[in-house]
Formats: sequence, C-alpha cells, structure tokens
Amino acid sequence: MPRLIYAFLLSLINIPYLSAQTRAIEFPDVPGFRTLKCDFHIHTVFSDGSVWPDIRVQEAVKDGLDAISLTEHLEYQPHGSDLPHPDRNRSYQIAKELAKPYDLLVIHGAEITRSLPPGHANAIFISDANKLNIRDSVEAYREAHRQGAFVFWNHPNWIAQQHSGVATLTDLHQMLIREDLLHGIEVVNDLTYSDEALEIALEKDLTIMGTSDIHGLVDWQFRLDMGGHRPINLVFAKDKTEEAIKEAMFAHRTVAWFDNLLVGRENVVKPLVESCLKVKEATYQGPSAVATVEIENISDASFLLKNHSPYTFHSDGDIIIIKPHQTTVVEVKTLQQMTEFELEMEVLNAVVKTNAHPSIVLPVKVDL
Amino acid sequence: MPRLIYAFLLSLINIPYLSAQTRAIEFPDVPGFRTLKCDFHIHTVFSDGSVWPDIRVQEAVKDGLDAISLTEHLEYQPHGSDLPHPDRNRSYQIAKELAKPYDLLVIHGAEITRSLPPGHANAIFISDANKLNIRDSVEAYREAHRQGAFVFWNHPNWIAQQHSGVATLTDLHQMLIREDLLHGIEVVNDLTYSDEALEIALEKDLTIMGTSDIHGLVDWQFRLDMGGHRPINLVFAKDKTEEAIKEAMFAHRTVAWFDNLLVGRENVVKPLVESCLKVKEATYQGPSAVATVEIENISDASFLLKNHSPYTFHSDGDIIIIKPHQTTVVEVKTLQQMTEFELEMEVLNAVVKTNAHPSIVLPVKVDL
Amino acid sequence: MPRLIYAFLLSLINIPYLSAQTRAIEFPDVPGFRTLKCDFHIHTVFSDGSVWPDIRVQEAVKDGLDAISLTEHLEYQPHGSDLPHPDRNRSYQIAKELAKPYDLLVIHGAEITRSLPPGHANAIFISDANKLNIRDSVEAYREAHRQGAFVFWNHPNWIAQQHSGVATLTDLHQMLIREDLLHGIEVVNDLTYSDEALEIALEKDLTIMGTSDIHGLVDWQFRLDMGGHRPINLVFAKDKTEEAIKEAMFAHRTVAWFDNLLVGRENVVKPLVESCLKVKEATYQGPSAVATVEIENISDASFLLKNHSPYTFHSDGDIIIIKPHQTTVVEVKTLQQMTEFELEMEVLNAVVKTNAHPSIVLPVKVDL
Amino acid sequence: MPRLIYAFLLSLINIPYLSAQTRAIEFPDVPGFRTLKCDFHIHTVFSDGSVWPDIRVQEAVKDGLDAISLTEHLEYQPHGSDLPHPDRNRSYQIAKELAKPYDLLVIHGAEITRSLPPGHANAIFISDANKLNIRDSVEAYREAHRQGAFVFWNHPNWIAQQHSGVATLTDLHQMLIREDLLHGIEVVNDLTYSDEALEIALEKDLTIMGTSDIHGLVDWQFRLDMGGHRPINLVFAKDKTEEAIKEAMFAHRTVAWFDNLLVGRENVVKPLVESCLKVKEATYQGPSAVATVEIENISDASFLLKNHSPYTFHSDGDIIIIKPHQTTVVEVKTLQQMTEFELEMEVLNAVVKTNAHPSIVLPVKVDL
Repeated sequence: MPRLIYAFLLSLINIPYLSAQTRAIEFPDVPGFRTLKCDFHIHTVFSDGSVWPDIRVQEAVKDGLDAISLTEHLEYQPHGSDLPHPDRNRSYQIAKELAKPYDLLVIHGAEITRSLPPGHANAIFISDANKLNIRDSVEAYREAHRQGAFVFWNHPNWIAQQHSGVATLTDLHQMLIREDLLHGIEVVNDLTYSDEALEIALEKDLTIMGTSDIHGLVDWQFRLDMGGHRPINLVFAKDKTEEAIKEAMFAHRTVAWFDNLLVGRENVVKPLVESCLKVKEATYQGPSAVATVEIENISDASFLLKNHSPYTFHSDGDIIIIKPHQTTVVEVKTLQQMTEFELEMEVLNAVVKTNAHPSIVLPVKVDL
Repeated sequence: MPRLIYAFLLSLINIPYLSAQTRAIEFPDVPGFRTLKCDFHIHTVFSDGSVWPDIRVQEAVKDGLDAISLTEHLEYQPHGSDLPHPDRNRSYQIAKELAKPYDLLVIHGAEITRSLPPGHANAIFISDANKLNIRDSVEAYREAHRQGAFVFWNHPNWIAQQHSGVATLTDLHQMLIREDLLHGIEVVNDLTYSDEALEIALEKDLTIMGTSDIHGLVDWQFRLDMGGHRPINLVFAKDKTEEAIKEAMFAHRTVAWFDNLLVGRENVVKPLVESCLKVKEATYQGPSAVATVEIENISDASFLLKNHSPYTFHSDGDIIIIKPHQTTVVEVKTLQQMTEFELEMEVLNAVVKTNAHPSIVLPVKVDL
Repeated sequence: MPRLIYAFLLSLINIPYLSAQTRAIEFPDVPGFRTLKCDFHIHTVFSDGSVWPDIRVQEAVKDGLDAISLTEHLEYQPHGSDLPHPDRNRSYQIAKELAKPYDLLVIHGAEITRSLPPGHANAIFISDANKLNIRDSVEAYREAHRQGAFVFWNHPNWIAQQHSGVATLTDLHQMLIREDLLHGIEVVNDLTYSDEALEIALEKDLTIMGTSDIHGLVDWQFRLDMGGHRPINLVFAKDKTEEAIKEAMFAHRTVAWFDNLLVGRENVVKPLVESCLKVKEATYQGPSAVATVEIENISDASFLLKNHSPYTFHSDGDIIIIKPHQTTVVEVKTLQQMTEFELEMEVLNAVVKTNAHPSIVLPVKVDL
Repeated sequence: MPRLIYAFLLSLINIPYLSAQTRAIEFPDVPGFRTLKCDFHIHTVFSDGSVWPDIRVQEAVKDGLDAISLTEHLEYQPHGSDLPHPDRNRSYQIAKELAKPYDLLVIHGAEITRSLPPGHANAIFISDANKLNIRDSVEAYREAHRQGAFVFWNHPNWIAQQHSGVATLTDLHQMLIREDLLHGIEVVNDLTYSDEALEIALEKDLTIMGTSDIHGLVDWQFRLDMGGHRPINLVFAKDKTEEAIKEAMFAHRTVAWFDNLLVGRENVVKPLVESCLKVKEATYQGPSAVATVEIENISDASFLLKNHSPYTFHSDGDIIIIKPHQTTVVEVKTLQQMTEFELEMEVLNAVVKTNAHPSIVLPVKVDL
C-alpha cells in the first residue's frame, strides 16, 4: 500500500526502509565459535507478561536473535484466573510451534520465583517446568539439576528485594553454587547493570548473564525508536544448536550486551572486540609520517577506545569512537614511516570487572 | 539511565525526545463540537489478538486517543483452550479498570462474527456481550438493538469474504438497515480503504467508520517508525462522554483518519479542515502585488491542496502542501494590492465520495 | 578522522553516510535521449555572487550536474573596484579549467542585464562575452546571435521589475522572438515558478527554462538540509556534449525541475515520467481480484498521482504518492483476475500548462 | 514558499525546522566571565579562500559566533591577478561593514606566511596589515607587536611543513616567545589536533588556540549535515568587546572546541564543564538506597564521563554520556540514603595535557 505518510520522509534524506533487518542485532563470529544472540529471560501472558508468545517470537526474529527462552514465573500468576494453565510448559510449547518457520531456537525454561534468598532464578534447558513448581526452593533447584538445567540468579541487584541495589552473596547462594545448583548470575537485567554481580560472577566462577526480562514490549521498554536495543547474551557456541549453546554457557563463554556496553570475562570479550574491528587499509600521507589507518567496525557496538600506544593521533586526542557498521579513519603519528606497527587501545565500552576495561591490540600493516 | 546509545543521536541534530506525546494524534476541535479520537475495533488475547488489554490501553494513551472499544470476536476464540473466559465481558472489564488512571473512555463492545452476509459487525455501547453470543445472526443484531447498541458492518471489502474487494450490499444488509439494526459501515479497516463502502454509507445513510482492527502491535502494523499512524475515527461530540460520543455516531458526525486521508461527509469534513488551517498573517512584498500568506496547520494531516482561486502562485504550481504542525508560506499573485481576498482550495487528501474531494475557502486579510 | 560527533548518529539509525553522491540529482534517460542535468544561470564574485568559481564547480559536482554556465552580469559589477576584470570571459575560463578533473561541461555564457523591457537575459554557447557588453540592448542580442548563442529571458516574473509578478510579453519581446534573437524563457528562477511564463513559452514557441540563479550558497538557498534541491533544467540530448545540449535546447527538449515539480511540454514530460516509473511485478492476492502492483520509481521526484483508471484501489483513495528511489505497492481492484490491464494516472507534480497536468498510462502485466 | 519536498519530512517525525539557530554553537558563561565563541583563522578570496567576506559573516552568524577575524595571507595571493588589492586591510574593512547588522565583532587580523621556522602565524588586533607585509619574518612580528597585536603560531603540526606532524619548538620560536612576540599556539587547526602543541602551550606559557582555518565552506569542511561543528576558540572575557577578548587571550583564558573535544588549561576547562552540567533533582527510589540523579547539560558538548566516586551505578558501568541540551538520569547506589553526596567524574572529552583529562565534582542534594 502506498503509505502517503512516510513517502517523502524515506527518500528525501535517503534513510533506508527501517525494516526488521535493520533492527537486527549484529556481532561477528569469533575464532572457533559462532556468536549467538540469546535472550533467556522473557515473560508472556502465561505469567505476568502482557503479550501472547507469538509477539515474543516476532520480536526475537526482528531483533535477529538465535535463541530465546520464555521463562514464566512458576508461582506468580496474576492472570491465573483468566488463564489457569495448570501445565507450566504451555508457554514453551506455543512458542516452539510458532518459531518453526524461523531460524530461532526456543529453549525450554522457567523462573523459580522466591523471596531473597535465594531470590528469583531461571532454569533453562529443562524438560518439565511443572516439576519445578514445588514449595521448597532448594528442592526446586535440585529438580532443575536433575533435568540437566542451567540455572542462573536473576537480578541480584533488584531493589524490590535488595534495597541497596548491591548484589550480595548469601550462605544459601554459596551452598547452591557449591552443590552445582547455580551456574550463572545476571549482571545485566532489563534496564540495570551491576558491577557487584560481575564481581560475584568472577569470584564464584559463574556464567555472566544479560537478559531483557521483558514483560511489556521490547520496542517501548528499550526505546528502539531512539536507537536502543534489548539487553541480550552473546553466547559463543560451536554450533547453532541447543546442545552447543548449553555447552557454551556451562563453559562461561558469554558476554552481556547492554546499552552499548559489552560485559564479560577478559578472555571472552577480547576476541569478540578483535573480531568486530578490522584494519582495512593504512597508508602514509605523502612523505609524511602520519599514517591514515582505516578501521572497519562490523558490529553494532559503538567502540569507545582510549589510546595506549606510544603514538599520538593527528586528528584526535587519546579517546576515539569507532562507529558501528562503518569505517573510521584514525591518523597516527608514527614519527617515521614504518611498514607495520601496533595500536594498543583500552575498550571503554567493555567491562571485565568493576571499573576495568579490556585492552586490545590492532596490528597495522602499511602499504608503502 | 544514561543510554549510551542515542546520546549523540538525539542532540546533535536537535531531534527532540520522541516521547509518547509526539506520537499522539492531534486534530483541533470544530465549531460546536469536540474532536474526539476513537478506535472502536480492537482485539486482545481474549479473542484472536496477541496482547493483554493493558497494552491496548497503553497504545491508546500513547496515540492520544479519547475512547476505545475492545471488540472481541464472540464466536471465534482461537486461544479458548488456554483462556476459556465464558464471560465475554471480561476483556472490557479489565481494560475499563486499567484505563482508570488515564483520560481514556473504554466503551463496551463486541464483534458479531459471521460469514457473509451479514459478515462481521461490531456492536458498541452494549451492556452484556454474552447475550449477543447466539446462533442466529439477526437475533444477535436484535439483542444489540435491545441494549441500545450502535452497530457497524466491519470490513465489507475484506477479500477473505469478498473476493472482489468491492463492498456490496445484500438483501440482508438492506433489511438490517431498514429495521435500524445496522448504523455504520467501515470505510477504513486496518490497512484498507473502500470507495464502495463510502458510497454505501452515503446512499444508505450509515455512519462512516474507520478503525484499526488491530490484532498485533499498533507500532508494527502501522509503521509508526516510518511516521505512520493507526486508522481511527474522529468523532465530533458535544462532550467527552460516552453518551455524547454515542449521540455523535448516530448523528453521522464522524471522519475516518487513514494514512493521511480524511474520509467523511462533506458537511463534516469541511469544518474539520477549516479548523485545521488558519491564515496567520498576510502582507504584500514591498510595492508588489504578490501577497505572502502564512497558513498555519495545527493538525497531523499533511494537506494536499489544489488551487481553484482566480490567482496563480509565485512559488508554486496549483498544488501545494500544507505541512502538519507548521506554518507554510504561500505567495499569491493578486494582480493588485487588496485588503482582503479568498483562496478556494480543493482538499485532495480528503474524500467525500469516490474520487471527489471537498473544497474549502480560506479568507485572507492583508496588513497593508 | 574519527569525528566523535556523528559517530552514533550515523550508525544507530542506520542512516548511510550522506555523501556527495546522495545529494546528486537523479533522473533516468528517456527513449532516444540522455537526460542531462543543467544549470544555466549562476553567479560568482565575478559579478554579484559571493563565491569564487571553484565553489560553483564543487556544488555542481555534488549535485550531479552534467553542465553549468556561469552567467555573470556584463554590466552590473558590484565587486568591480576590488575585482576589475576587464575581460568578461574570465569567470568562464577559471571554471572551465577547474572543471577538468570532473565529468562536468562548462558552457560559455553571460547575462545581459537591462531594465524591462527587455529585462535580463542569458546568452549561452557564446564565444566572447566582451562583445556583448554594449550599450544598445537589441545590438547585444544581435551580437549573441552572431556568436550562435541560445538566449533566454530571465525571471520575467521578477517583482523588482514587474510588480504584479505576472510575466508579460512586450512588443520588444515579440520583436526579439520574431527575429530569432530570443529562444527561451525562465519558467522557474531561484525560488519562483511562473504559470504565465509557461503560457508565453507555449504560445511563442520558446524553450522552457529552469535555473537556480544562485548568488550565495546552493546549500543554504535551497535548504539541502531539509531535503531541498536546486532548480535545474533537465535537457534531453543525443549525447553529453556541448553541441548536443545546444541542439536539444533549440529543439525545446527541456523540463524545469523545481521543488518536486516537473514543468515542461507534454510530449517531453510524459516520456520522462514514464521512464521514471516502472511496474516491477503484479500478482493477485490468492483467489481475489485485488492485484498487488509494485511500482518502482528510479528518480528523485516524489510522484503525486491521481487515478483515472476504471478501477478503485484497495488501500488508497484516488491520490497516491510514488516515493523517489523506492518501490511502492498499489492494490488495484480489477473486479476479475486479468492477465493485463492499464492504470491511467494524472501526474499532479508535473505541469504542462496553467493548472494542467499530464496523464500517463502504466501498463500492468500480471503473473497469474 | 511551500516547499513540496520536505513537507512530510519535517512534521511526521517532529524534527523542528533546522534553522540558523539550531546550528548555533552553545556554551554557558562561567563564573566571572562571558563565554565568547570566536574563530580567529579564516580566509576569503582576498587570499586563498573561495568566498567573498559576506559568506564568512553569514557562516559566523549561523554558527552563533561572537567574534571572527579574517586572516588573509599577506604574502600568498593566488587570486592576485584578478583581485590585486594592494591594501591588505580590504578584507577586514568589507567584513566589518557587512557585520554591522549583527551582534558579531570583526577583529582586524592577518596571516604572516613563512616557511618553517617560524612557519605561519596570525596577528590579530592589528591596526594596519600592510605594515606587516615585509620580507624579514622577525621584523613582521616586531611590527605586529608595535601594533599591540596578539600573535599565535598556526598549525605547528602541519605535515606540509613538518613531516612528522609533531609540533616542534625551534630556537627561533623560543626567541619570539622570550621577546614577547609570540603569544599563542594552535592546538587545533582545521581537522587536526596536536598533543605536542598543547605541551608547548603549557610549557612555554602560550595561549591555547583552536581555529577553523576555513578556506572553502564551513558546511562542507566540518560536515554540518552529519552534526559536525567548526573548530573554534571559547574565550572567557569580562565583556563582549574587542578589548575584553584581547585581555582574555593574553591572560590564557581560552578553550579550543574541536570535534566534541574541549582542550584547555585545567583551571579554565573545569569551571566551563561545571557550568555546562547541573544537577537538577535527586531522589531515592522508594525505600531503596538508589538515588536517581538528573543531570542537565546546557551545552553542545556530549560529555563522556568516567566515574571516580566511591559509588557504583545502577544502570551503567563507570562510563556515562551526558547528552548535549538534555537531562540525563544517573542512578547512584549510595549504600544508604543520604541528604547529600558528591560525584567525582573524569571528563574524557576534555584534554588538559597529553592523555590527561580534568576531573570535576558534581555536588548532589537529595530531596528526601
């Protein structure tokens, strides 16, 4: 239909049609692994969410996700009188069916919803949600374990349960971790990020999780109209299969992608950033010792880099921005013409622990 | 939260924060009446829609609507096994409660869903949806009538029921109209507009209806990201009350607002357009006979006008666009300086019958 | 240089880099001719303009022009005390030299600048501007004629010379035309368009001209930041050579492109519009008689079409917009499935005489 | 004139008309001083620039500048054969006259254009440019001194004169500084920034300069269409007068504003940043210890801040962006509710010496 309205808008400033594709989140694969985009914390009308599972599937497809899990609260059912569903697997079953036409994995999951401790936790890769719906919290975790689930602590920084907003490990959590009943922790949930949760992840060897915990609409909650994106987990898996994702998560190969921030273990984040950025071409300007270095960014991240190399820049201070899906030129004063040199950069929009950012090295070969 | 992402975007090209307000549909009141923005054809998970009623309320609030009606199919219940709700008033009750904090009227309604004839029809201003859920179609209309309902024929151009897409009146419809059981007809439904439905409305004295018939998300279906808007009914009512809206609808005081098109009876559309456009200032350029006329448009419509006045323009041919929420300058060659003159314009983005557009007269007073 | 500023802007809403190319004006060739984009009325510091000729060449290259002419006032030299240049060919010589690296023709021209009548006129394809710089107006025209020039009347609607803004033919003009000393007339100049000038062109068999008459900066004057474009002449020439352009202009094969308006003779405008619009694909929606017709627009014009075919549309009234550089879908109710049909459309954003628009026929073949 | 083209564009996504005003550079005054926006390195056709002085005045007015200086090369006159102007004050005189209708100061200046050393230098606040146009470089500086000029070294990093791009002090410069003949140094010129020039400024007590050195068009060179801005000097003066500006410059009260980077002495940059940012409101979220702090940025700078306070954030890592002309919310985990606290932040988009950024303290008072 010729939509009278955005006719001019589109073409005159040459904005391409902002279709599903352009909102798709994009990160490149890393050496040895596929980079899968996953959201393992999602609600629908089958617990306290506001949409039927079909919308969740559509949002995921539009966002370019590889895998999702609908993790309905087992115990909290505000729509229960209208939508009784004694079978807590129902939401999963519907989504699984609806996802068939797409290249989208739907992972079976559920949210064990308790007061703190232990607070809320998601169990994913489960076989029967109903069996987790039992009174004793620890027993629920044990049942998840029996089903081979990967279990992670949700929003440990949630101010409704933790007034300080500071994620704090309790004895119960220590026990759950010790007994291999808890494997991950949300460092990113919805609109929040927690340095303290990251510290717990590193200290207790838990998988770093980032999820949307979406209840309403992704478009509204994460301001897609303003260029926002839903928080997700990047999972570095051998394959795009449920098994490979599960293996990757138990192996801690994850990064949380939140509001242009990449949060992860240093050994996982570094190869990701290095895969995002490529030196395309470098040349000296005439007889000068100023090298024009073209850096291509093939990811959605807007990289904020701090120069730690011995060279200063000709057109920037020590902070540069490497724009997503573009080639940015950096002019490096190498003092003399060289056939190759290295740029060491601190990645400020990536976090590996509280206030600490990873560093990468960009090797530059010059066409003399 | 400082969203790293759209920081620059927003400010550097000075785009204001695109909040709920900016998406609100805006049309001015007309002499004697308030212009109310209404959508009387909406679905939720309580029939074949994809969202809980809370999303419908939020969409309406964001769109600046004055009144909505959730019109669930009485007979078609694809989510019925999960969401049995024997009480067909349930969707209305939930929305009514959720709308309380807002200045939004929720009108009780339902969709009588039959094969053609009579096809689908919405009954609004009803008191009990359950009583309409009966086998005999005509009896359902009679029950609606007993409840004092306003009933309109939905998407008479629906190709699933009418392969030609051409709205066609049947004997049954004639009878329903004759017996005062059918009062309106959708000239606009979802992404479609029907010239033939407009002809039927005019010929049979039915109210002109325009509705979204939304099942999924308004944002997606009507491409709000591209500047689109949901189709609605503008209703010209004495007051913002359910009673006043009902009175207006039975009195045919409606316009359908669809994809920048205003569809309505000439006597209703003309005062609307004339209320949207105001001549702010007019002056002659020095000693010349070229008058600079500033026309302010206080509505969302982008007016497409064809000049039928005896004067030609100095900077345009005979077609001009008067942009929404802006002041546009038209330069008129009046041959000699005059203290006042009139601009007669055909409004191409308004329709009063097939291929026919209303004309308005803009009186211009010049500051000499 | 990594420009910190528009880093985010660019990528997050996926706006492509708005380079010189995207501002280039684009219209397709027509059967038998190349469509050349020309601006034959331009000023620099060598008369009363504000820039050196290099900026004019750069503007032309950015705008994607094929040919320009710097037409300095021979007689009006406000910068003369600083920039005496007794040789009135100087501006041309500089531009010619500067244009060498580009695929841009620089046509030798000058503006004969007199009070009305005859008013201002441009002579292009001249050999020596100095010889035109003589007191007697008619003699100047005769000298232009001796040089083989194409001469056109500038801004006959200029209110500084004609208070009514109404282009009016005088005896002197009649004589100049009769003696073949005047060949064209500006229907478009700078920010103005003149219906009356178009009438004169048609009546007196003059070439239709549209020019920027730029004195300041194209970017500012024509609001390129708002999606504006400079007014130009489209010239339909056998080749991209000075000779071919000259032949085309004497043969009246021109269209003025002004503020999304195409102004030209019907036999010239129609093939242009028909070259801009192509039916890509047409199919029926299932068993319905509603044909989905994809119309591609490969030009910069936003076409405003009024349906004059016997079919109504399924998603539009009788007015549709075919967006530039996009494919627009029109849904046509053909009453029964047909293997081919025609859409007759009036092109409202094209003018062939006062208030008159050309009609085109789009033949549609359906994939059944 | 109703410009058909950007009609829809403007209104549908509610972009305000991007007029001269919105491109105006905006920074607030600081305690005790007005913040004046100045560009003291500009060329026109009177040396090797491409525009008449009127364009420079218009650009300055559009950019919201308070003062400019046209600094034509005294010795380098590529347009000399067309535009001989033996009086080197001519460009200044024309601009001065043209600036009269505006609130724009035109400072008398000239560029002394020599090979390195000493390279190029601008002398501003001069009385007669002709007297500077002499063979001996040092004598030219002495004459500038006699006229009371402020003299600064232009683009010491210019690779055409210095292949390394590394600004390097020579004996001649040392002498000029010692004898008070050289007072400032360009740390920013055109598209370049120099850490080494900043070091020289700090070490030798020179004023920090940032200039556009514009030869072509500001719009093109600094990509205003992409949100770019021309490089300028912010000068902190007691008044908007030539005298006050001169006093401020000799007193080193300047900041260079370049591609979102603020370069200046720490004692000058800090009050500027602190004047740009204001805590508007702070409240705790219910009983929690998470304070919602609203920070308003009333400047054009997009502040890139690194948290050095003892508190972590609830929605961000340690890096936040405070968008220009907006209010940004930062959520601070203060561990317990407090009536006041401080946020110490490193300003990454400001430079006070190589790789060093100033820190500011934002005092927060909470409404409990």
